[in-house]
Amino acid sequence: MGPITGATMEVSSTFDNMTGLTHDRPVQTSSFCQQFASVDGAGNYDVVNNVVIPTPGAPDPRAQNSLRQSWEMNYQEAAIYLQEGENNDKFFTHPRNAHALRAYLFAHNHLFYVMELLTAVLLMLLSLSEAPAVPFLRLDVYVHATLELLALVMVAFELCMKLRWLGFHTFIRHKRTMVKTCVLFIQFIEAIVVLVRQTSHLRVTRALRPIFLVDCRYCGAVRRNLRQIFQSLPPFIDILLLLLFFMVIFAILGFCLFSANSADPYFSTLENSIVSLFVLLTTANFPDVMMPAYSKNRWSCIFFIVYLSIELYFIMNLLLAVVFDTFNGVEKMKFKSLLLHKRSAIEHAFQLLVSRQRPDGVCLKQFDGLMRFYRPRMTARDRFLTFKALNHSGATMLSLQDSYKFYEVIGLKWKARRSGEHWFDDLPRTAFLIFKGINLLVKSKAFQYAMYLVVAINGIWILVETNMLNVGVSWTRVVPWSYIIFLTIYGVEVLLKITGLGPLTYFSSGWNLFDFSVTVFAFLGLMALAFDMEPFYFIVVLRPLQLLRLFKIKQRYRNVLDTMFELFPRMASLGLTLIIFYYSFAIVGMEFFADVVYPNCCNTSTVAESYRQINVTIGNRTVLEEGYYYLNNFNNILSSFVTLFELTVVNNWYITMEGVTSQTTHWSRLYFMTFYIVTMVVMTIIVAFILDAFVFRMNYSRKNREPLDDPEDEKGIVFETEVSQTEALQTLDLYKHTLGVTNLSSLQDMCVALERSGHSSLVFVGRRSRTKCDLSMKMYEEEIQEWYEEYSRTNLQPDETFHRELDSPEASATNSIN
Amino acid sequence: MGPITGATMEVSSTFDNMTGLTHDRPVQTSSFCQQFASVDGAGNYDVVNNVVIPTPGAPDPRAQNSLRQSWEMNYQEAAIYLQEGENNDKFFTHPRNAHALRAYLFAHNHLFYVMELLTAVLLMLLSLSEAPAVPFLRLDVYVHATLELLALVMVAFELCMKLRWLGFHTFIRHKRTMVKTCVLFIQFIEAIVVLVRQTSHLRVTRALRPIFLVDCRYCGAVRRNLRQIFQSLPPFIDILLLLLFFMVIFAILGFCLFSANSADPYFSTLENSIVSLFVLLTTANFPDVMMPAYSKNRWSCIFFIVYLSIELYFIMNLLLAVVFDTFNGVEKMKFKSLLLHKRSAIEHAFQLLVSRQRPDGVCLKQFDGLMRFYRPRMTARDRFLTFKALNHSGATMLSLQDSYKFYEVIGLKWKARRSGEHWFDDLPRTAFLIFKGINLLVKSKAFQYAMYLVVAINGIWILVETNMLNVGVSWTRVVPWSYIIFLTIYGVEVLLKITGLGPLTYFSSGWNLFDFSVTVFAFLGLMALAFDMEPFYFIVVLRPLQLLRLFKIKQRYRNVLDTMFELFPRMASLGLTLIIFYYSFAIVGMEFFADVVYPNCCNTSTVAESYRQINVTIGNRTVLEEGYYYLNNFNNILSSFVTLFELTVVNNWYITMEGVTSQTTHWSRLYFMTFYIVTMVVMTIIVAFILDAFVFRMNYSRKNREPLDDPEDEKGIVFETEVSQTEALQTLDLYKHTLGVTNLSSLQDMCVALERSGHSSLVFVGRRSRTKCDLSMKMYEEEIQEWYEEYSRTNLQPDETFHRELDSPEASATNSIN
Repeated sequence: MGPITGATMEVSSTFDNMTGLTHDRPVQTSSFCQQFASVDGAGNYDVVNNVVIPTPGAPDPRAQNSLRQSWEMNYQEAAIYLQEGENNDKFFTHPRNAHALRAYLFAHNHLFYVMELLTAVLLMLLSLSEAPAVPFLRLDVYVHATLELLALVMVAFELCMKLRWLGFHTFIRHKRTMVKTCVLFIQFIEAIVVLVRQTSHLRVTRALRPIFLVDCRYCGAVRRNLRQIFQSLPPFIDILLLLLFFMVIFAILGFCLFSANSADPYFSTLENSIVSLFVLLTTANFPDVMMPAYSKNRWSCIFFIVYLSIELYFIMNLLLAVVFDTFNGVEKMKFKSLLLHKRSAIEHAFQLLVSRQRPDGVCLKQFDGLMRFYRPRMTARDRFLTFKALNHSGATMLSLQDSYKFYEVIGLKWKARRSGEHWFDDLPRTAFLIFKGINLLVKSKAFQYAMYLVVAINGIWILVETNMLNVGVSWTRVVPWSYIIFLTIYGVEVLLKITGLGPLTYFSSGWNLFDFSVTVFAFLGLMALAFDMEPFYFIVVLRPLQLLRLFKIKQRYRNVLDTMFELFPRMASLGLTLIIFYYSFAIVGMEFFADVVYPNCCNTSTVAESYRQINVTIGNRTVLEEGYYYLNNFNNILSSFVTLFELTVVNNWYITMEGVTSQTTHWSRLYFMTFYIVTMVVMTIIVAFILDAFVFRMNYSRKNREPLDDPEDEKGIVFETEVSQTEALQTLDLYKHTLGVTNLSSLQDMCVALERSGHSSLVFVGRRSRTKCDLSMKMYEEEIQEWYEEYSRTNLQPDETFHRELDSPEASATNSIN
Repeated sequence: MGPITGATMEVSSTFDNMTGLTHDRPVQTSSFCQQFASVDGAGNYDVVNNVVIPTPGAPDPRAQNSLRQSWEMNYQEAAIYLQEGENNDKFFTHPRNAHALRAYLFAHNHLFYVMELLTAVLLMLLSLSEAPAVPFLRLDVYVHATLELLALVMVAFELCMKLRWLGFHTFIRHKRTMVKTCVLFIQFIEAIVVLVRQTSHLRVTRALRPIFLVDCRYCGAVRRNLRQIFQSLPPFIDILLLLLFFMVIFAILGFCLFSANSADPYFSTLENSIVSLFVLLTTANFPDVMMPAYSKNRWSCIFFIVYLSIELYFIMNLLLAVVFDTFNGVEKMKFKSLLLHKRSAIEHAFQLLVSRQRPDGVCLKQFDGLMRFYRPRMTARDRFLTFKALNHSGATMLSLQDSYKFYEVIGLKWKARRSGEHWFDDLPRTAFLIFKGINLLVKSKAFQYAMYLVVAINGIWILVETNMLNVGVSWTRVVPWSYIIFLTIYGVEVLLKITGLGPLTYFSSGWNLFDFSVTVFAFLGLMALAFDMEPFYFIVVLRPLQLLRLFKIKQRYRNVLDTMFELFPRMASLGLTLIIFYYSFAIVGMEFFADVVYPNCCNTSTVAESYRQINVTIGNRTVLEEGYYYLNNFNNILSSFVTLFELTVVNNWYITMEGVTSQTTHWSRLYFMTFYIVTMVVMTIIVAFILDAFVFRMNYSRKNREPLDDPEDEKGIVFETEVSQTEALQTLDLYKHTLGVTNLSSLQDMCVALERSGHSSLVFVGRRSRTKCDLSMKMYEEEIQEWYEEYSRTNLQPDETFHRELDSPEASATNSIN
């Protein structure tokens, strides 16, 4: 085969070479293609496997057609590999044949994902309407049971698709899917039972519903969080045991020391003693728990001080330290395995894209083919620019080394570098001068500080004004004249900035966006007030938000807030994780504790006071004395969420616990204590996460000597690539005539822009915002090299061995060709 | 001078060379010596400065005497340098002349330190007896004022000593000393005023008393902590401002939203609104603060959830992250500067110890001379062994490179390596076999696990038994038979272990010590019970402590507890720092709030309930309904401490605040809020410290691949050195005849041991426990090399420039000789 390749290489021109126009055949054929061939047309199959090389210049239409089909299959499979690399899907779930491919494609598009998500959300939302329902959302049993059945059928359908794609063998080996199947089965039976009996039974299994949400493609972050939580559990539990052990020892001691005091209800029995000290762990009953003993003997405070010092100030922090440490390690390992997984995905894809004639590189043609599958929405111009950006060596083909940067380049947004700086450069002279003046004004330090001053004055004004308002005056109806003045100033500022910087530049900054929306909201609020639109009054209340702008002054705040925005996606997913835990606990709580607390319910308990609701006559006025705690109930899912949030905040949580306990059995405490421990885990993880993220960020900027205040537009990842006019035209030609791509407007635009600019070449700039992954790449620079070396030594990831073994015939074939 | 040195080198034997017996003269003479010379005898001075080299073999007695004196001075100054290096005293406080030396020596010994400490403690303890005093410690005004005056005079005396030693110029440049002087002056005047008026006035300045304690030599750790706290302050304050800013914004919003609700006292005015949200920051009034609004409109909970999410769960953690990060950096910088300071101290000392004949090395003679000043209690044998341990190259002299290890070697405890393993090796055959059997038994896994089983059963037994006890039975008087059985088992175990392992080995393990003391205490408790000794009953209560032994089973617990013990000194110093803050706040609290709260005091406030103390008739029984919070007062310093601890724990702290506020002015809140913020700083530092220490420890063991479960005796720092018989005898000879050291029993013992062992040499093992410094040395191994290089490039520490400039003539002289 050597001589043939050589011959082809000689006849093809350089440009031909770059674009891959010669009739190369892939080194490795897609597994789909073989199957396709055997199913659809035996002819194609033969052609692909028997090496029939069409002579250049005289293409055999049949062979060429099959060749094109074979390439298309390869593009698709490569795109799937890259997708798997991006999503961190293990390769053993890679579709193995054409059937699987069809199911895979069906199950891997946004429509399917959205359906998956909506079904899961619908299932979870059902608990709003199932008894005990939120009053205004109550539905009849047959309605919600039917809805549930429908949703479950949808889930079953999704699972069938998955089964088709994974194959039975892989399916039953996939743990999460198996659990999901079991839960689905149980829920199905229960839903039918409910429908038949026309009444809900004790359905604690509803607490398992979030599993459908967790399994959604879009909830990958939540899955990762849960995995991280479970990975942090073993050391956590060890320390927790230490904590509980000390608690029990102190409970016994406390019982011995204080049970003789009949005025002390906290240590009257061993159980009370344990519960009191558990609550004391959360400090919720301190100092009350100490008071009876303290009033008898002042030295008894030592017992409590020692207990709190050991448990709260030492072991609790130890817990954080252990979780933080584990978290740190897990983050790094996760990053490593993700990085290597991506690398391996790129290698897989690369093998499918190289041709027999050029086994070391990928041409634009192949790359474009891949991108059409991988990013169908991407314009032809961007595909071309991405190829150019990857092609670091300047050669006509991408080497494997080049392609390793694939994931860094793929998210770039491409833009031609402007010749001028300002949006108004093309305007007539007078207008230009005016706008130039405004531009200089809004960019000047003086203007900025003047605005800060205005905001500061506004802040003080608001404080003073609010302080002087009479109690009882409905604040939302009063619009002082000062407010209108300040708002006008802000409005003028926004207008000046938009005209001076140009709308695009203006809105590309998060801070400006914030300014703009706050100002617009304030105007809307004012209008609502003017036109007497009741429900929008609350907007006026948001006016102090303007003051937040003051934090732009100091560098540290900007960093903190920037980091905050960088963290936001992770924080949101952590919040969602917490909500999933809340949901499960809320369901259990509703099943057991719905309607058990009500005003004046717990008169026999120690917390009767908090549940009291009586009319007290003081002098000649009758006042309603309210304990309010009956509001912290599990009567519907919304109330349950609020109650659980209160339990998370921990303060006074024992009142809710004791109230419920006094109305049910004392085993109810188990529920509350378990919840406390679970939220403690999640909260510790959240704290560890914030700690880790900030310390990481600060280390990063220290390590890279990055003056954290580099200008806005220097942030993020930037790639540049230069396109000459001839290159552009050739590419356009190539796309038009040989690749059969229809939508070429983007490429045409590029050519036009090149012509208009008058230069022989144009620089395109690709930008994207920096992700945690980019930061990690820089932080672990040295270690990454080690990982790569280690990886290329073994060339096998642990979890990939299985797949490689399946692949081995092809892999060895590839090797023999090289 | 070159040829002379060469000649001396030639005639001196190797042994002579090692011990430095030739009449070398120091390269650099002590600054004290010159002064001494000019004061005491002009002759000596001349001899030292004019280079009169006595011919070997015919020593001139006068020259030799002056030479010896000159060396002694050098030893002393070198010892002082090393001490300064150890204590991290800056060199600009180094005594400059003989006067200063005398004052320095007076002020630098344990007697003086103890006096300093006692004076400071006495001053602080006085507040127990000053009005408002602890009842049983009350003293008359003239008594405590006189005591105070005495203590202040002591402090003044100490300051005078310091002035003499530092010199006026350095003294007024030393900030801490200046502050101390000012405080002393004020306190003096106030004490006299009190004595004259025979009554205490408002003495808030007493809050400054801890400064005397902080300045004590023994409280160096507290000083370091305070410095660390102050260094962490700037970023802390930034984030705190962010926190308070959000608080104010939300307070305004809350006031707007909820002030219309007359049933809501928390947001009725802007001030109330701010206070409510400040308290909510600590969660102490949650969910009560939400309830009135929540009962009106269920959606109002969103306000509180958003507030808590931002403030409590985000910014508070940010605070921790920032402090943790700063802390990390500060710890590393501190370690670096300490390390370099020590290095520079060693270099200073080395310059004073080398002789003109051998400018590159220190002989045993000089080293011994130094050690006699540096560690007067060290035996001659240990001095010799330390020299051997330092002398890594095996040459006869210590090079500068060798001496850099000085601080690592100095703390070692030396022991001859035993020939046999067991203490009973020398016993007769039968006894040996018995003890060997016991030894094997107690070392066996089976025995250990049997004991764990016994402890576990004991634990369950105690739980069950305690649970079955009737309420009201005085637990301390009941000794169940099971207790006696378990105690017997423990007693037998202790005896077996002591006999099997030998008392020395047994007591060298912390865990064994714990076992032993718990068992002994239990026995004592039992005896107390048997002989009816009332006050010791409480010991019986400690029996569950035995259960702690169970934690030996798991590796992680052992590590945690070991780390805990390693951390203990730092934790104690942090605790002391906290107490110092407490003290200051307690004094201020007592001055302003003494006796303001009492039962039923605050009936007009919102927290009246908590201060109530009334008799309620329920049915036909009269029950005292107590609120108890009047016990949380500032009536004397002990109560104040308990109250402040309660405020530190934070829960329900607003009850104390509101109670005091209702009896005084609403400015009192400032005191409580300030205290909260101060404790927040200190507590954050404590959390950061624990986090840092544990994460550091875990990183350390990960980095060094140290299987954290290495056997007990492998831990710590171990040095070994071999001493041959001839060497030992020669050393003994040297000490006896030439150095004039009188107490040689240790060296003689060594010689005897060598003879008895029958071997020609004996290995001595020096051990000490590992400190944080050793861990850091290993952790930062690579960076340390960089630091050293950087240091030797500049060869000047920033704060040392001053001193070097003073030294420069001598330094240049040294250089010219080399």
